[in-house]
Amino acid sequence: MPRYGYYDAVVVGAGFAGLSAAHELVRAGLSTRVLEARPRVGGRVLTRYLPDGTQLDLGGQWIGPTQLNITELVHRYGIETYPTPGEGAMIVDYGGERLTGSPPEIAELLAEIDAMARQVPVAEPWNAPRAAEWDRRTFASWLADRGCSQVAARFLDRVISGGLLAGSASETSVLETLFYIASAGGVEPLLGYEGAAQDTRIVGGAQEIANRMAADLPAGTVHLSDPVLRIEHDGSGVRLVTRLGEQWASRVIIAVPPMLAGRIQYDPPLPGLREGAFQRMPAGTALKVHAVYPEPFWRADGFSGVARSTSGVLTETVDNTPPNSPRAVLTAFAYGEEAILLRRRDAAERRRIVLAQLGELFGQRALEPDELVEFDWLAEEWTRGCFSGHFIPGGWTSFGAVLRAPVGTLHWACTETAVRWNGYFDGAVESGRRAADEVRAVLT
Amino acid sequence: MPRYGYYDAVVVGAGFAGLSAAHELVRAGLSTRVLEARPRVGGRVLTRYLPDGTQLDLGGQWIGPTQLNITELVHRYGIETYPTPGEGAMIVDYGGERLTGSPPEIAELLAEIDAMARQVPVAEPWNAPRAAEWDRRTFASWLADRGCSQVAARFLDRVISGGLLAGSASETSVLETLFYIASAGGVEPLLGYEGAAQDTRIVGGAQEIANRMAADLPAGTVHLSDPVLRIEHDGSGVRLVTRLGEQWASRVIIAVPPMLAGRIQYDPPLPGLREGAFQRMPAGTALKVHAVYPEPFWRADGFSGVARSTSGVLTETVDNTPPNSPRAVLTAFAYGEEAILLRRRDAAERRRIVLAQLGELFGQRALEPDELVEFDWLAEEWTRGCFSGHFIPGGWTSFGAVLRAPVGTLHWACTETAVRWNGYFDGAVESGRRAADEVRAVLT
Repeated sequence: MPRYGYYDAVVVGAGFAGLSAAHELVRAGLSTRVLEARPRVGGRVLTRYLPDGTQLDLGGQWIGPTQLNITELVHRYGIETYPTPGEGAMIVDYGGERLTGSPPEIAELLAEIDAMARQVPVAEPWNAPRAAEWDRRTFASWLADRGCSQVAARFLDRVISGGLLAGSASETSVLETLFYIASAGGVEPLLGYEGAAQDTRIVGGAQEIANRMAADLPAGTVHLSDPVLRIEHDGSGVRLVTRLGEQWASRVIIAVPPMLAGRIQYDPPLPGLREGAFQRMPAGTALKVHAVYPEPFWRADGFSGVARSTSGVLTETVDNTPPNSPRAVLTAFAYGEEAILLRRRDAAERRRIVLAQLGELFGQRALEPDELVEFDWLAEEWTRGCFSGHFIPGGWTSFGAVLRAPVGTLHWACTETAVRWNGYFDGAVESGRRAADEVRAVLT
Repeated sequence: MPRYGYYDAVVVGAGFAGLSAAHELVRAGLSTRVLEARPRVGGRVLTRYLPDGTQLDLGGQWIGPTQLNITELVHRYGIETYPTPGEGAMIVDYGGERLTGSPPEIAELLAEIDAMARQVPVAEPWNAPRAAEWDRRTFASWLADRGCSQVAARFLDRVISGGLLAGSASETSVLETLFYIASAGGVEPLLGYEGAAQDTRIVGGAQEIANRMAADLPAGTVHLSDPVLRIEHDGSGVRLVTRLGEQWASRVIIAVPPMLAGRIQYDPPLPGLREGAFQRMPAGTALKVHAVYPEPFWRADGFSGVARSTSGVLTETVDNTPPNSPRAVLTAFAYGEEAILLRRRDAAERRRIVLAQLGELFGQRALEPDELVEFDWLAEEWTRGCFSGHFIPGGWTSFGAVLRAPVGTLHWACTETAVRWNGYFDGAVESGRRAADEVRAVLT
């Protein structure tokens, strides 16, 4: 592969956003190169196999039926899918009380939040009628002041700000929370399994989609293990200095998370407002832990494997066992303060804490998995946090208008810039296509 | 100067933090190198002269009597100072009403805030009795819910979150606001002029202190124009890859703002919690504009040049004329949303908006300065925002404990890590000395 080249467009990052952009550019007849820092494609999606063939999706893993962009790709490549295992009872630990579903108080609050979310125009949340009021207030303080029970506030902090935004309700505004919900079409499409965002899994793992997208590009398009260190840009084009060489292009699409996009060196430096926006989108702190067992024992006990909890460090669990898997996988999630707390412990202590809670939820047999596999995206050099980044309070109203705006010959993609299904595979695809459209409009 | 070298300690950044660290290291007999990205020392301090000799401090400029670290340095180098011009009336635009001082409602609110700040232990704000409650709530929503008048809320948003933290009350928690106040010893030491943080200016400009500190290090210690791009580190030492070469050291002190510290490439990558902390300290958005006039006409009108306003884009002005200056300088500040708004206008429009407000405050003569000099630190590659960085809501309680903790052979300095006078020159000096103490304890 040549170390130097001149392209119509270079795409930085080979996640779903970057690969989607590259496909559109190639289809438009533009010479295109994708530069990826890692030795693999897929970005925040990573499938690994244990020696016996048990498959683990360490990053993003689900798709749902209203996610039209990613669903179309799955169909295009003839990728097989399977429904998330769902039979059996759900466990809800609600302030220590054990339920089989959300209590009425939660349903009422979710309906109220849904109604508020419908007032947020997803393409420009800063123009919501109550944008100023909602952006200056954290979702945590809204919950505290709403007059609901403490356990309801804790449940929504953990299940919405945690389970959806992968953070804490202290870190994000009411407006960002509502935007995120509106972007997916409501609370139920986000939280649900069947028919919703957790509906479907990918045979072979979610990374298979990215692998197929990369393989479907002209040979040599994707350049792996070559982080972009510096981008020199002016009206006439762009020079990219990478670890392995340099590339020239007329336009560049930067398709990495905002926090990483801000860390590339730009010459001239990015304008202040663009910079300010990048500084205000920290990434989520989710920890995802896979417990591997000889068999899905919870099913025999009548449980689906899905749990939601206001106690302990784990907010959610799910049966993550693919069909015909040699072994069963119960996957647990921690978010926000609990995920921070776990990271402050050593691996042995983390294991003890996680298993103790799995034992409380699913009984004695949960205490002794064959293996416990954890993966910390916050410590991953080329990701630095999952699921995605979110504007801090005040961010949308001050910096929202610059989020997608090109800077001269630089264009921006990544799921954080998406209008629909922001934070999901689907939004990443949308963002890559939108950025490619911008480039195509200029170059063709 | 050798391009390669091995040192006991390398300091990254030649602002007040880095220079202070270097002094302590040299004094302890440790071989020391300071690497600075810019062609100058001083960091967020920058003094420039107009062709006729009129001096402008484009960055930090004041010191106060309770700032013992920086005061001691000024004395050590025999640097001359002068009191900030203070004679004449202050102008307060309070919701359109013109006053000569803060109204009783503000005094009452400030007393309440002061009392709250006294409950925050500055070395560990996350251990304040009400830390969790205060960290999940923005200062903006606290003001909105407090039951004060709208104009009082706007005044405190602009004068405290703006004038002190250089941002917006939407972006920072009650806890961060209270910590910042506690760190300076109260509201009055921060907001006041005589006897407080705006008491004294430096003859020759504030950069003179940094210049003298640099000149007082052994020749060749400070290496300019050499940004550190990559730091490889293990238990035995550190290799720094810079634009011009490489350096080895036993220990490194990283003395740049948090957002920039997070942008250096580390190998191995920084631990997740350290990374998470860096992502959650965006820098302030202050805009400082200097209007240069033939003479300080406002003095003849009985005004001190100090104004505070809840109207328009400018929150504060001050008479910034040094003694014996060829011309007079009236300096204006915009913060938070108003500073964002100004950045969205072109230079001509910004000029029009700024001058219109100066005219309203100080009359017709303010409309026609000889020159209007603006400087945007948010667009400065090696700063990226002023005055300083602040934890977002939830930051202190989740990430506060890792803020100053070394990572193996890496140590952290900068005013954002200071316990006393956080955000000021004085805190920067404290932080550099503290980091040097850590290194000295290991190496000597």
